[in-house]
Amino acid sequence: MNLHGKNFIGNELTTGTGQALRPVSPLNSEPLEPGFAQAGLADVDAAMERAAAAFAIYRQTSPEQRAEFLEKIAEEIMVVGDDLINRAHAETGLPLARLTSERGRTVNQLKLFAEVAREGSWVDARIDPALPDRQPIPRPDLRRMLVPIGPVVVFGSSNFPLAFSVAGGDTASALATGNPVVVKAHRGHPGTSELVASAIVRAADTCGMPAGVFSMLHGEGAKMGVALVKHPHARAVGFTGSRSGGRALFDAAAARPEPIPVFAEMSSLNPVFVLPGALRERGAQIAEGLKASFTLGVGQFCTKPGLVFGLSGESLVQFQQTLARLVETSPPATMLHAGICESYHTGLKQSKAVEGVSLLAQTQQDADPKQTHGEPVVLRTDVKNFLKQPRLAEEVFGPFTLVVAGQSLDELEEVARRLEGQLTATLHANAEDLKDAGRLVAILREKAGRLIVNGFPTGVEVSHAMQHGGPFPATTDARFTSVGTAALLRFVRPVCYQSFPEALLPEELRNQNSRGIWRMVNGQLSKADVPAAK
Amino acid sequence: MNLHGKNFIGNELTTGTGQALRPVSPLNSEPLEPGFAQAGLADVDAAMERAAAAFAIYRQTSPEQRAEFLEKIAEEIMVVGDDLINRAHAETGLPLARLTSERGRTVNQLKLFAEVAREGSWVDARIDPALPDRQPIPRPDLRRMLVPIGPVVVFGSSNFPLAFSVAGGDTASALATGNPVVVKAHRGHPGTSELVASAIVRAADTCGMPAGVFSMLHGEGAKMGVALVKHPHARAVGFTGSRSGGRALFDAAAARPEPIPVFAEMSSLNPVFVLPGALRERGAQIAEGLKASFTLGVGQFCTKPGLVFGLSGESLVQFQQTLARLVETSPPATMLHAGICESYHTGLKQSKAVEGVSLLAQTQQDADPKQTHGEPVVLRTDVKNFLKQPRLAEEVFGPFTLVVAGQSLDELEEVARRLEGQLTATLHANAEDLKDAGRLVAILREKAGRLIVNGFPTGVEVSHAMQHGGPFPATTDARFTSVGTAALLRFVRPVCYQSFPEALLPEELRNQNSRGIWRMVNGQLSKADVPAAK
Repeated sequence: MNLHGKNFIGNELTTGTGQALRPVSPLNSEPLEPGFAQAGLADVDAAMERAAAAFAIYRQTSPEQRAEFLEKIAEEIMVVGDDLINRAHAETGLPLARLTSERGRTVNQLKLFAEVAREGSWVDARIDPALPDRQPIPRPDLRRMLVPIGPVVVFGSSNFPLAFSVAGGDTASALATGNPVVVKAHRGHPGTSELVASAIVRAADTCGMPAGVFSMLHGEGAKMGVALVKHPHARAVGFTGSRSGGRALFDAAAARPEPIPVFAEMSSLNPVFVLPGALRERGAQIAEGLKASFTLGVGQFCTKPGLVFGLSGESLVQFQQTLARLVETSPPATMLHAGICESYHTGLKQSKAVEGVSLLAQTQQDADPKQTHGEPVVLRTDVKNFLKQPRLAEEVFGPFTLVVAGQSLDELEEVARRLEGQLTATLHANAEDLKDAGRLVAILREKAGRLIVNGFPTGVEVSHAMQHGGPFPATTDARFTSVGTAALLRFVRPVCYQSFPEALLPEELRNQNSRGIWRMVNGQLSKADVPAAK
Repeated sequence: MNLHGKNFIGNELTTGTGQALRPVSPLNSEPLEPGFAQAGLADVDAAMERAAAAFAIYRQTSPEQRAEFLEKIAEEIMVVGDDLINRAHAETGLPLARLTSERGRTVNQLKLFAEVAREGSWVDARIDPALPDRQPIPRPDLRRMLVPIGPVVVFGSSNFPLAFSVAGGDTASALATGNPVVVKAHRGHPGTSELVASAIVRAADTCGMPAGVFSMLHGEGAKMGVALVKHPHARAVGFTGSRSGGRALFDAAAARPEPIPVFAEMSSLNPVFVLPGALRERGAQIAEGLKASFTLGVGQFCTKPGLVFGLSGESLVQFQQTLARLVETSPPATMLHAGICESYHTGLKQSKAVEGVSLLAQTQQDADPKQTHGEPVVLRTDVKNFLKQPRLAEEVFGPFTLVVAGQSLDELEEVARRLEGQLTATLHANAEDLKDAGRLVAILREKAGRLIVNGFPTGVEVSHAMQHGGPFPATTDARFTSVGTAALLRFVRPVCYQSFPEALLPEELRNQNSRGIWRMVNGQLSKADVPAAK
């Protein structure tokens, strides 16, 4: 495969600062070719200027045109073929099967968002026709819908090199709703990023989209990312990564002369509460499910269950024994890059050193640093100690979980009340447990964006009802989701047209509902036409 | 009327710091009785603790209970009767007729929001039933809806002592969606605030609501307001006021360990573009409408048209002559308080002193400082000068507008492109003008939340299709509205329930659609029940 290692400013390629970013394969710690040209501030400015110019055109494209564009991107990604999977494997160490399925998810997500754009009801059209005879004053004609917000800056994530990266959910959401995108490629997989960026640029070209609708820059420090967020043309930011990284971008965006929204998905421990009946009846099965979930993808999921609460007793002892046995035979595996692997080992070391924490189990196979190995580990403590040790409530990204023993349901509720915001919270419960679980569910609802009964939090469905976003620090804005079709709503804002002549109204708001979308007319949902004013 | 001058911490009254806030009537510059007890940090803490405790109960109330509560508040406000109107008149100088109509708006708004809460579809329920047989992996059952966010801090505005104050749109939105409210009363109308707060407390009591569902504190500096925003239990903020005040609250909220959203409505010039055909055909009529709009409420509306653009020529000369004649005979009138009046005169003075600006007209009657008078004034300049002088793009709150002459439509488009964010933008155009107006409309759509053709921006309808909110600095979050039924969406967030047993699901998400709301099932809107899983 031929990689040029350049930045994409629309359909032009630049060599940026001349400094190269050199990826290293986590599989063998060997460097990968080529070097990638790190973008400079001039590239940031050029990409954002192009995006702003493209916005004036792109925002006027029809839903059908945008849908075709998204579908074409999906098609072009598939055209890249095995090169994409192989390169992503070399750059991230993720298994080929996983990457193949992640590509499927990415492509299906583009197609689903295309479908939603084409259907069109997402614009939340609302029409309150004029009431010229109303007393004491007439009501003017009012028509409101969602419109694109402007250029969106997307930061590719490390752990989903396809589904949350260059053509991932943020990019798909922004493009589906009429916004240009400027991606900062993740330094961990620049070649994968280039292949996907090329696919997008080809699709934009085929579909006659303005070139600046998409740009992608390489870089490794925080400087270029912050420059993108602070650029006057930036209108919103999508980010998946660390708490410190997300917070820095949020702070930069909030400090702008004109603040802009940041959708950062950052940090979550995804607590699992195993209630007594479930622990007694299905302890071994839950241990198996937990082990599979916290080691999935070498624990590098934002929804990895990193905290497991249960009540002390014989059932918990057996559960822990089962879990320990499973973990001891679970092999170390290659993590995404050396930095993540190092952070994992630092986090583990710190957690192990916390007073009142002991090792429950770890893999019995040696980890190979050259293969950037992360090894499965389970620690344990009790609720009283957990509440005293804030370190234990910090995310450790990797194949690690902490089992926390409580003395009573009250104690579990108390610990739930004191948790920070989470992406998910999970309950394992039998029918008997569920009778008393209402209060715990009510507490957890304030803490998390997704609540799960008798399942595990890994595996995030891309559908209409998904919510992937929770109170801080899980995300910077719990009111929105970064997965599922509601993710489109992040990059839009409402505009009301008052007393507009039909010809100047967007198609969605004209009397004749030619797009056949759902509209709220006088407060009632309807697909009917609106009668013309007399 | 008997006023106690105390703070409301739920249904308890406190005397705060012991320092009194003493309102002064703008009608005659005389002090009004009684003094109002300024709240201290202990009151802030007590109110927020009560709100958090109330939230655990209030969030579980049914839509019907919340609707009845809102309706009861409306009823209790009417029970206060003329005392409310008279006190508001004494405190704000607003005419009795205006206050009576504002009370009507406030009460109708509470009733409308009650109706929306009762109907219930606003929760945006989405159900993706399980697909147990899907390949390669099953889909779990996913059900998502909007839930309340938690205690909301509301800052009463000065210019709408009823409709944007203690029981105004922010409070109504928060209560309708299940959130307790802590109001900081505006120092300009503490007695009016007390009367309305008493009405809310009586309604809460009658409806059996938890006492901390509503609190109200008095204070005059920024300190107490910032303490409310920074309180750990605060979950969102509603504010209407100055750009500096809104920005300070936004910055405080963004700097919290756990940032929270701020909906601040701040500053808008509401530009009016009078296109050549309209100017020629209806210049005199537009001048009349403009004069009525910019002097309405002594120019103290956030939607006051403060900028008017037209093309140089005979029609503009005639338009200016008509406008001048109208303004010269338009009397000075009492502004809301001495501070606003002083700011108005400072702003006027600064604008008059700008190079290239000249006086077009001002009232020929003397302003009386004792009556806190603001006098109608129109200045004029040209587009080239306007673009050079940033001072002219700052809001002057009061009965003032600036007429700006351009040389060409291109010049008008250029100035539109360079405007900051606005609540509204208006076009006066005849059929001929409209043919060329598409580009100007497209530019203005990026700048404003509401676009008006052949009308004036003052007069904000409380309906489903209203959008009152625009790009910064008009508001801090252009994605939401503070007027109309979509205002409810500010204080909620989505939660997804995965694989939940029916009994633990909120009523809105159960298979049987007992509430009869619109729900998105597998992506399709429907009021049907969902078949039970096999």
